[in-house]
Amino acid sequence: MRTYQFVHNTPTKVFFGDGAIEHLDEALSQFGKKVLMVFDKNTAKFTGLYDVVTGVFKDKGYEWWELDSVDPNPRLKSVVEGAEICRKNGVEVILAIGGGSVIDCSKGIAAITFYEGDDPWAPAVDSNLIQKVLPLVCVCTMASTGSEMDGGAIITNTDINVKAGYHSDLLIPKVSIMDPVYTYTAPKRQVAAGCADIFIHTSETYFDPADDTYLVDGFGEAIMRTCVKYGPIALKEPDNFEARANLLWAAPWAINGLVRGGRMSGWTLHGLQHPIGAYYDIIHGQGLAILMPHWMRYILSDKTIDKFVEYGVNVFGIDPNLPKKEIAEKAIEATEDFFFNKLEIPRTLSEIGVDDKHFEDMANQAVQGKNGMYVPLEKEDIIAIYKAAL
Amino acid sequence: MRTYQFVHNTPTKVFFGDGAIEHLDEALSQFGKKVLMVFDKNTAKFTGLYDVVTGVFKDKGYEWWELDSVDPNPRLKSVVEGAEICRKNGVEVILAIGGGSVIDCSKGIAAITFYEGDDPWAPAVDSNLIQKVLPLVCVCTMASTGSEMDGGAIITNTDINVKAGYHSDLLIPKVSIMDPVYTYTAPKRQVAAGCADIFIHTSETYFDPADDTYLVDGFGEAIMRTCVKYGPIALKEPDNFEARANLLWAAPWAINGLVRGGRMSGWTLHGLQHPIGAYYDIIHGQGLAILMPHWMRYILSDKTIDKFVEYGVNVFGIDPNLPKKEIAEKAIEATEDFFFNKLEIPRTLSEIGVDDKHFEDMANQAVQGKNGMYVPLEKEDIIAIYKAAL
Repeated sequence: MRTYQFVHNTPTKVFFGDGAIEHLDEALSQFGKKVLMVFDKNTAKFTGLYDVVTGVFKDKGYEWWELDSVDPNPRLKSVVEGAEICRKNGVEVILAIGGGSVIDCSKGIAAITFYEGDDPWAPAVDSNLIQKVLPLVCVCTMASTGSEMDGGAIITNTDINVKAGYHSDLLIPKVSIMDPVYTYTAPKRQVAAGCADIFIHTSETYFDPADDTYLVDGFGEAIMRTCVKYGPIALKEPDNFEARANLLWAAPWAINGLVRGGRMSGWTLHGLQHPIGAYYDIIHGQGLAILMPHWMRYILSDKTIDKFVEYGVNVFGIDPNLPKKEIAEKAIEATEDFFFNKLEIPRTLSEIGVDDKHFEDMANQAVQGKNGMYVPLEKEDIIAIYKAAL
Repeated sequence: MRTYQFVHNTPTKVFFGDGAIEHLDEALSQFGKKVLMVFDKNTAKFTGLYDVVTGVFKDKGYEWWELDSVDPNPRLKSVVEGAEICRKNGVEVILAIGGGSVIDCSKGIAAITFYEGDDPWAPAVDSNLIQKVLPLVCVCTMASTGSEMDGGAIITNTDINVKAGYHSDLLIPKVSIMDPVYTYTAPKRQVAAGCADIFIHTSETYFDPADDTYLVDGFGEAIMRTCVKYGPIALKEPDNFEARANLLWAAPWAINGLVRGGRMSGWTLHGLQHPIGAYYDIIHGQGLAILMPHWMRYILSDKTIDKFVEYGVNVFGIDPNLPKKEIAEKAIEATEDFFFNKLEIPRTLSEIGVDDKHFEDMANQAVQGKNGMYVPLEKEDIIAIYKAAL
């Protein structure tokens, strides 16, 4: 199948490295001096960023408002609250300080502030309704979703138990400040889940039928190997700059289009995980990691085995001279070892508080993405995978 | 050495794939309808692009001027000529149709059209003089320099025999249209030289001392493996879409910052090749390829051997269990085999018309970049490498 047909657009200017926060004023002031600062209280405190950023604000004469109540799976109500602050005060630019949740919430706010319709969820359902947005600047505190360099925002609508998102190139952050040092204090289980998230963003695209994606699959393998090498180091030595820098820089490239090469499908695991996240307040990367090996076992067949071999050899260094079946099995085992032993992610859905009560409804949601899946799954297949992961 | 400290900026919007030219009007019209079209007559004819583009112009009511006399190593005089056309006619946007020479010439024009000083070479010497530029849109016909996604333009000043360039983020193309089909008709030796150029852009950064660049070196290895795999196929089967697409998409990522990870030095071979290109009208990628193995043999030592081993194993698949010295030697031989047998690039400087008459002057120019080299070379070292390559 010929894939290479796509639009690539990564206009985010990135200031990367130790001390990158020095560029904050330069990043913001091009848009104005009235800022909505979106953050998580604990992160801003532990990293010291609250004091650093408000120091710059005071020094340079900014006017700012604070939204510090963003949930780990950001809710529509926070988006609405932020947009109200922006409209009321004529905010000119949003500053997100945090990981994916904070950045996604900020994108939601950017998307709906100028939206004149009644329903703030409507632009999430129809991205054509996103026509004018507030500019967004990010200060990253987590290597994870890569939201700092793409145009997507995953938001949970608790009224209808749906996790969906605002998507538009207009929502791509204008500037992202990425200093590995600010990721040192992230909670251990978030670091592990973030690393799994980067890995699986890449594997979602990697496991998609295409035979001309040699270059971008090579890029993807480099990202996955980086997760395997540095994730465990970041857990053991939180202030290992080398590990943090490699993971932080891997995150946006896992999702900003580089590894895609025109493939728009794949993404099976996200389709299976989002309905779980809509019902249970779990850590996204944990859910994905728990499902992945079960999904792999479920879809491994003569038709898919070559991709498993490529993955096993190029990501985990498995001996290419072994029989294909053995390589594929070792690849799945290596994936489990990486997630559950090295990254210490819980192994089952039960352990993270998910039961089988909503499997039917969740599978009904997930099956809607069937046509985009690497191996299309029916509702019964999805329930079987959920049950295996329980 | 800690490297990860950099600004990443790739704002070019890329339309990639079969039929991407459909986006031409969308790409140009945002800037205006008065266009300077810079191209090479033969390329525009063989690809059919002249008719396609002027068809769009007529259809959509554009006014355009043509500069079709760009040399393979673009000269300052073409830049000056183009800028005069732009100033005289109030051109609003430049459209480059071609490979690196045409795009670089166009960037030069973009850089000096609004420059008010007397000397058009001055902004090449001092990039701070580049303050306001014309926007640039590219239609690529070659996988080579990657100029379609970066802010550099290499121009030859024949008055003083210097090959240098205009460099500014302002010169990064706004849009690049990259259709692999338009690279099918490129002359064979240009395809080979272009492939070597992509490879060496990557290796220049790869061979630079840094111990925390695991991720970006993985990206670089993917690019180099892509050149090794698809370069020979593109030569044998000019209309192999898969080969052309992988090479075309590899080119910009070899030079737009992705594989750098903050390293700003390396680039020894370009420092050695540019003085040759200033005296002799040779194909840039051929000059680089001829020099590379000799440079490798010259700098191989106990201090550099680990990088050669990494390169040999990860790019050429050499058995990692062999002794280091053997891997390094095999890696250099594999490089030679790739350039001179597989890509059929001439093996010596003599074969491309270079003699030893200017080695002194050339080495004097090249040695100025000494401090940025992976292994710093003195004038005598550089002359020795030139002589070995003769």
